[in-house]
Amino acid sequence: MPDAQTLWRDVQRIRADAPLIHNITNYVVMNSTANALLCLGASPVMAHAPEEVDDMVSLAGALVINIGTLSASWIESMEKAIGAASRRELPWVLDPVGAGATSLRTQTAIRLLGNMAPAVIRGNASEIMALHGAASITKGVESVHDTDAALASAMALADAYHCVVSVSGETDLVTNSRDVVRVKNGHALMPRVTGLGCTATALTGAFLAINPDPLEAASHAMGVMGIAGEMAMDNAVGPGTLQLHFLDALYALTETDVRERLRMSLS
Amino acid sequence: MPDAQTLWRDVQRIRADAPLIHNITNYVVMNSTANALLCLGASPVMAHAPEEVDDMVSLAGALVINIGTLSASWIESMEKAIGAASRRELPWVLDPVGAGATSLRTQTAIRLLGNMAPAVIRGNASEIMALHGAASITKGVESVHDTDAALASAMALADAYHCVVSVSGETDLVTNSRDVVRVKNGHALMPRVTGLGCTATALTGAFLAINPDPLEAASHAMGVMGIAGEMAMDNAVGPGTLQLHFLDALYALTETDVRERLRMSLS
Amino acid sequence: MPDAQTLWRDVQRIRADAPLIHNITNYVVMNSTANALLCLGASPVMAHAPEEVDDMVSLAGALVINIGTLSASWIESMEKAIGAASRRELPWVLDPVGAGATSLRTQTAIRLLGNMAPAVIRGNASEIMALHGAASITKGVESVHDTDAALASAMALADAYHCVVSVSGETDLVTNSRDVVRVKNGHALMPRVTGLGCTATALTGAFLAINPDPLEAASHAMGVMGIAGEMAMDNAVGPGTLQLHFLDALYALTETDVRERLRMSLS
Repeated sequence: MPDAQTLWRDVQRIRADAPLIHNITNYVVMNSTANALLCLGASPVMAHAPEEVDDMVSLAGALVINIGTLSASWIESMEKAIGAASRRELPWVLDPVGAGATSLRTQTAIRLLGNMAPAVIRGNASEIMALHGAASITKGVESVHDTDAALASAMALADAYHCVVSVSGETDLVTNSRDVVRVKNGHALMPRVTGLGCTATALTGAFLAINPDPLEAASHAMGVMGIAGEMAMDNAVGPGTLQLHFLDALYALTETDVRERLRMSLS
Repeated sequence: MPDAQTLWRDVQRIRADAPLIHNITNYVVMNSTANALLCLGASPVMAHAPEEVDDMVSLAGALVINIGTLSASWIESMEKAIGAASRRELPWVLDPVGAGATSLRTQTAIRLLGNMAPAVIRGNASEIMALHGAASITKGVESVHDTDAALASAMALADAYHCVVSVSGETDLVTNSRDVVRVKNGHALMPRVTGLGCTATALTGAFLAINPDPLEAASHAMGVMGIAGEMAMDNAVGPGTLQLHFLDALYALTETDVRERLRMSLS
Repeated sequence: MPDAQTLWRDVQRIRADAPLIHNITNYVVMNSTANALLCLGASPVMAHAPEEVDDMVSLAGALVINIGTLSASWIESMEKAIGAASRRELPWVLDPVGAGATSLRTQTAIRLLGNMAPAVIRGNASEIMALHGAASITKGVESVHDTDAALASAMALADAYHCVVSVSGETDLVTNSRDVVRVKNGHALMPRVTGLGCTATALTGAFLAINPDPLEAASHAMGVMGIAGEMAMDNAVGPGTLQLHFLDALYALTETDVRERLRMSLS
């Protein structure tokens, strides 16, 4: 079960193994998620050409798919990469950025889920509820602001796809449809930095590469995100400096930081 | 008329409403302009697929078109998005990055202007002069370094397209072809940070989303850019740290900062 | 021959002339390499549309080609830009990012080298060895970790293409197949920042624009990278802050910094 001890064990594994994380992600966050993966100890690569995704997946420990800046040719590459991951039983994580905002995003996320279920779906409450609403037509579109509704959607999605769903927010919720892990770390300024949600998804990929239990992997990623955010705020004075101190904190993270700061509970 | 009081009112509106700003912009600045919009209080989204620009425009308070890294398929999306903005009477702002450097850029900017006039064209002196030169063949190519020539071009463009033209430089000029607003804020180190011009355009979009007067919106954006740049230099020691402290300053901006620092005049 | 005096002369030339450096590079590093070029004193532009690369090359002092996030249409633009550079005898530099990881990358790098030899190939040991292995089938794939093997590959590639090969690592090696320049500047934290290798390539482009001797240009670029990295570590506490202080150091670099810190030797 996810806790401070297993979280720290996983951080040490990532630092020791430096697993290659193959990202097909959006243009906005490529630099910041690559830096976050490097600071955690993983080895990031970004590759989207249909001609090379199969080769790259064969070298990777996990695949990260993020639909933040879609186009038709990128969707084709995402499907090809998921297919390659499926053949190799490689874990992958989906970030359905903007699902619910446009039908292209909602439909693409649903379509990608149909290839092979990911180990983890990581989104915000609105995105998870939109995905569930689209998959379960009778439910319609739910309110973005109802946390309980996001939990219900997360559990239903986890059940439907036999995967883990990780919902980020003031309290993060991670569920496999039965157990629910809550992570209460983080800082209110974090949503003012673009791409920290996408970074949570990328780090989830790193934990999946060294831990076969997706509930642990997803929970550990959210724990590390929140702790590093809190540590960063010891030095930051605004969203700009937060972004940099967050990377420094990821790199400097110690067992003491994890033990003293982690606020994770299971129900 | 643009002044400290209306500027501060607009900042408060953006912070209260968090308008969605739809950007089709260049790869270089996507991260930094998204962060600047978040720090100001707006909600940025980047979306360029032809299949989704119509959906996204329908959710947005303003559209930002920036031609900094063009390709044929992106031009198609830009035209589609401008068409959608036109049908909804949504304000849009054009950043003609590199107009004058290549004929693709100059011709694309001219072509985009032909769809529906933007609320604001925001560029540097060279780009504004190139746009005017291309539109008015008899004038030829003007010198990049003549400020008076840039003003004349700006006024002519504003007149031709019934829009506002915002020219950034040591002194920013904003004109609707009749009135000219001059903003003398900013710092000499700012041009050493890539994409601060593009950031000015993105912030212009945020002000357009909450203020129907494009002369005010464009002037307020330039005022906020300059003030945040000056505030950042209180803590920065070079272009690298400037970039981060600029974001912190945008986020921390107070009415006192605006009142004490704004150097804006109308003629 | 490359030394502190010629290095400093070149930095002054770049600051005085602000040569335009045309980059066709990967999405991950566009922002950070543009900022590094600005901080050094050069003028960066990113342009990849086949319709404009010829125009842009005609304005540039050097061309930088980086295959970090390839796709078919970008390869076409790279070939077109190299063709334009060839017709104008403009120096270009190739960064074969990920050569050896996928056949698309290895084959694309080889294919681009076949258009016109670059002035410099700049990669890490693994990439240089992969390029050499692919070009010289009988040699097979060499170990990534053998520094001597990287030197041999670098010298063989330099001989085959009549160019300079620049290999970055703890000690950088720069060779024209006869002379070998070693640069021992830098800091162990630098590989934890994404894109500093790509930045070295971009700065190599800036030095090529003002110095016709590619051995000097490539060596000076590596010297400046390492010195700025060391200077940055006087203020940085992790990879996040390193990234920003690195830019500040590039901008602040003085003759004294170069004289006191440069550790460059020729054999």
